[in-house]
Amino acid sequence: MVSQKNNLTEKKIINNYFKKLNFKKKGTFNFENDASYLYLNQSYKFAVTTDSISENIDFFKDDNPRSIASKITTVNLSDLYAMGAKPHSYLLNLFLPNYINQKWLMEFSNQLKKIQTKYNFFLLGGDLSKSKKLIISSTFFGYINKDLAVYQNKFNIDDEIWIAGNIGDSKIGLEIIKKNILINKNLKKYFVNRYFYPYPCHIGPEIAKFSSSIKDISDGLIGDLNKMLNNKAGALIYLNNIPLSSQAKKILKINDTLKIESLLNAGDDYCLIIIMNKKYRKKIKKAALKHNIKISNIGKIIRKKGIFFDSFLDVNNYKEFDHFT
Amino acid sequence: MVSQKNNLTEKKIINNYFKKLNFKKKGTFNFENDASYLYLNQSYKFAVTTDSISENIDFFKDDNPRSIASKITTVNLSDLYAMGAKPHSYLLNLFLPNYINQKWLMEFSNQLKKIQTKYNFFLLGGDLSKSKKLIISSTFFGYINKDLAVYQNKFNIDDEIWIAGNIGDSKIGLEIIKKNILINKNLKKYFVNRYFYPYPCHIGPEIAKFSSSIKDISDGLIGDLNKMLNNKAGALIYLNNIPLSSQAKKILKINDTLKIESLLNAGDDYCLIIIMNKKYRKKIKKAALKHNIKISNIGKIIRKKGIFFDSFLDVNNYKEFDHFT
Repeated sequence: MVSQKNNLTEKKIINNYFKKLNFKKKGTFNFENDASYLYLNQSYKFAVTTDSISENIDFFKDDNPRSIASKITTVNLSDLYAMGAKPHSYLLNLFLPNYINQKWLMEFSNQLKKIQTKYNFFLLGGDLSKSKKLIISSTFFGYINKDLAVYQNKFNIDDEIWIAGNIGDSKIGLEIIKKNILINKNLKKYFVNRYFYPYPCHIGPEIAKFSSSIKDISDGLIGDLNKMLNNKAGALIYLNNIPLSSQAKKILKINDTLKIESLLNAGDDYCLIIIMNKKYRKKIKKAALKHNIKISNIGKIIRKKGIFFDSFLDVNNYKEFDHFT
Repeated sequence: MVSQKNNLTEKKIINNYFKKLNFKKKGTFNFENDASYLYLNQSYKFAVTTDSISENIDFFKDDNPRSIASKITTVNLSDLYAMGAKPHSYLLNLFLPNYINQKWLMEFSNQLKKIQTKYNFFLLGGDLSKSKKLIISSTFFGYINKDLAVYQNKFNIDDEIWIAGNIGDSKIGLEIIKKNILINKNLKKYFVNRYFYPYPCHIGPEIAKFSSSIKDISDGLIGDLNKMLNNKAGALIYLNNIPLSSQAKKILKINDTLKIESLLNAGDDYCLIIIMNKKYRKKIKKAALKHNIKISNIGKIIRKKGIFFDSFLDVNNYKEFDHFT
């Protein structure tokens, strides 16, 4: 991106790029107040989540601003959906380096608007600071029926484990970008897009009522499933049922260096792991059909602690992706 | 601070230092979920505000962690009180550099606990990231009667302008730290403390019902008052009524370099500017007495645009403190 001397004051940035994102909603005070009010129908409560992404860790300086907008919204929307909540609104804390210019802000805010329109939520407020590196924090509000609560680590022995979505596409995209995998142009485009433009799996609110636990995969299937098990039980995984895109299946066939095992630890796919009693099988299939989302029964909860494949091969030596350490 | 090789994983940091801050409240899921639920009595709505502070801008690396905890909470609490809301809960986004060690985290979290206990709110959740510099974003939730809304730029001609608190102490503290003002030990301690350990003015919820507008002073009295006037009217200020601490009065007498005018643009005092009809004079005095908070009538709204002193000296050439540019 070309760096340019730009006269971007806080007021100009808010008025020119972000005001359009409040959708003129009551409580935002058209961004003229230091705080906002949150209005919600009495029969709902709020779900809240907050996540941050940083230059050189979650994205790079030259990444398309639209990709950065997709990442900060998806990481948060995914958490909301996993809580059974529908998106309501969000706050943005932007730490902007000098290289951020009008063009960047326009592309970034336009992509936010597109995503807001698609998933139906608005910008409630935020905060701007200067920084050496681009950092974005965001807090998302969702709404969920007052009487409903979705957990991440409640379940019974013999509950089934389901996945909504395909795993591994984003990880393959990253390996292609890093040039660890060479591949033809069309396949490359598919995977790189899946890495740069993630989207959340929105089936959560539809299945919240009958699920024991739901969690989105942000740190890899094995790592996140381990968090759900919380050292209270184990999981038996049917390796053949792990959901992969047809493109991922193709690349696994033709590329020797890529193994399905590595995809089990891949982050950033934002599929949902769903644990539920098998009596709800029909219900989840119906919900998946309605939302046109792929779902796969990949295993079940067992008494023996640990995560095991069909063959009872212990995978406890798989290392969880930890974005912090 | 001594940098040390420390084995601080995300889990350890949460368990050892931050779990105590959730006050075991429902909805926090004891920080085992990726998101939280917000529960509130039906007759209230939420007020939301978010603010960030960064190393080398709002504080320095060697500042006491307790001071940094006071700053991030005060900047947000102050916004809530100005909205007429009482604190409910908050989220923390921490960007931690390598120099952050156990001692730092213990002092920081203990100070947060102390402030939470004093103002009655709890930690709802958050997010940890690595960073080169220490950056803290925080989102605060307050609650306010459903039918009430406090504005920052609604008023009528002849409304009175009041200040809750004293202005300038924090600015004098900063000048002393920068060695721009030399002063005796006792006075120094007072002002430096006021700079390092700000606290919010909590009278907002008590006076929200009868105030036309309320705003906290974060960017200076003149700058914030200008924002409230919003180019719709003007203000006449009685210079002699500007509230100063006895210590500030003393230093103004003995120090030639410091002028009261410079204190009118001083940020970080977190007083409240209150605009209200004069018929509520008795009510605001009663509220001030109840909360043991100093209040001063410093002027009134006039038709002529601009901010004027008693002498009708135009202060439009005063520059507002802009923390962004």
